[in-house]
Amino acid sequence: MNFPQQHVPGSPVRSGIPEHGRVPKYYAVKARVAQVMDELGEGGLLPTERDLAVRYEVSRETVRQALRELLLEGRLRRQGRGTVVAGPKLEQPLALASYTEGVRRQGRTPGRSLITLDRFPCTAALAPEVGVAPGEPVWHLERVLLADDERVGLESTYVAVARAPRLDADFDPDSSFYAYLRDRLGIAFGAADERIETVLATPREALLVGTPPALPMLLLHRVSRDSAGEPLERVRTLYRGDRFSFTTHLAP
Amino acid sequence: MNFPQQHVPGSPVRSGIPEHGRVPKYYAVKARVAQVMDELGEGGLLPTERDLAVRYEVSRETVRQALRELLLEGRLRRQGRGTVVAGPKLEQPLALASYTEGVRRQGRTPGRSLITLDRFPCTAALAPEVGVAPGEPVWHLERVLLADDERVGLESTYVAVARAPRLDADFDPDSSFYAYLRDRLGIAFGAADERIETVLATPREALLVGTPPALPMLLLHRVSRDSAGEPLERVRTLYRGDRFSFTTHLAP
Repeated sequence: MNFPQQHVPGSPVRSGIPEHGRVPKYYAVKARVAQVMDELGEGGLLPTERDLAVRYEVSRETVRQALRELLLEGRLRRQGRGTVVAGPKLEQPLALASYTEGVRRQGRTPGRSLITLDRFPCTAALAPEVGVAPGEPVWHLERVLLADDERVGLESTYVAVARAPRLDADFDPDSSFYAYLRDRLGIAFGAADERIETVLATPREALLVGTPPALPMLLLHRVSRDSAGEPLERVRTLYRGDRFSFTTHLAP
Repeated sequence: MNFPQQHVPGSPVRSGIPEHGRVPKYYAVKARVAQVMDELGEGGLLPTERDLAVRYEVSRETVRQALRELLLEGRLRRQGRGTVVAGPKLEQPLALASYTEGVRRQGRTPGRSLITLDRFPCTAALAPEVGVAPGEPVWHLERVLLADDERVGLESTYVAVARAPRLDADFDPDSSFYAYLRDRLGIAFGAADERIETVLATPREALLVGTPPALPMLLLHRVSRDSAGEPLERVRTLYRGDRFSFTTHLAP
């Protein structure tokens, strides 16, 4: 099969496969389908697996493998019984701004759906991050993140009960936790340290976020301090790797 | 099989599987193996697949699936014929500092191995990023990134030939490109915009970086300007998702 050659910065280099390298058949199909997707544009309906198999003279299993990767990468998405070309990934700025603001900035409507709100005795590892002694009570707030009602992530927030004693009573879990801290408790955010990695969704996470199991996710760890420099919260946010990217501006 | 319960911030929440959720058998094995790994510590040799299958009373295929995920996530690595507990991921700061500095800061020795250095006519999309008109010549420098001789990434740098006319003659591809620009050409970096996403390695990339195909990778796009604010370079760096994480400090 012919393999399309391109040289687009930002895209993988496809030419120059080393001597001992072979292009797997499914990957050649994937590259061809990607060209079809470019022609269709966002929202365009892909031909069926069967049609693609006939067109490229390969087995349906080979087509399925190509489509599986395009789905995992978020370049295709299922819609009803068909498969359509997905829009670009959401770009979430790495900034002190909240999820809420990041999603709004892109013209999408943010939402959250409560999974868990419980309290547990602070562990030794968590103590310096939330600013209480081990054994003191800590909230764990777990929410599914939504963008236009689509489930896109899962967030666990850990904060000392002493900081937000009435969290279970007067906080609306579908609202911004940062706005709550600021407006109800007068706590302003100071600096934060973040770490980003890629992980596979656990079965529970996949179920909650509604993704295929083992979808690559972007995992963001954040440890924040308040404006007085005191430890405030620890957050673990899992974003669908097929729907999100992070942006940052670096200045000298 | 018993499923270990934990509540460690930074780790996935394992309790509270929704009513309609089941813990797949391979995942329960994965959680058990993770406990064994904690006891063994970094570099510890894991029991064989066969031993684990006997110990947990599951098939070898189930054990293999659990180990495959732990390998993809970089928590285990192959060593000779055995499987050992991997060290923590490298933490690369999101900063104007180069790959070289980031790796050195962690006590590892950075290296690079040249794959391609070619020139091509600038495309319309690339033109504003490298600061020349479409059709003008552009360098494409492609290198495998090394840390202590381990292949950890693949980097494509695009820069106008007018900026670095003798790149093919007087640049050592195993050295820092940023140091070259600064020391040989007197070009200082100004600001940069970065975007991070997760993608699957293409077969060619997997071959060059020496990873299993379809390993989740962290992809970093960077567009830099010089200290006068003029467009300078576009970089696409693929980091092994099992070996790297990115860190950033956010200040108000």
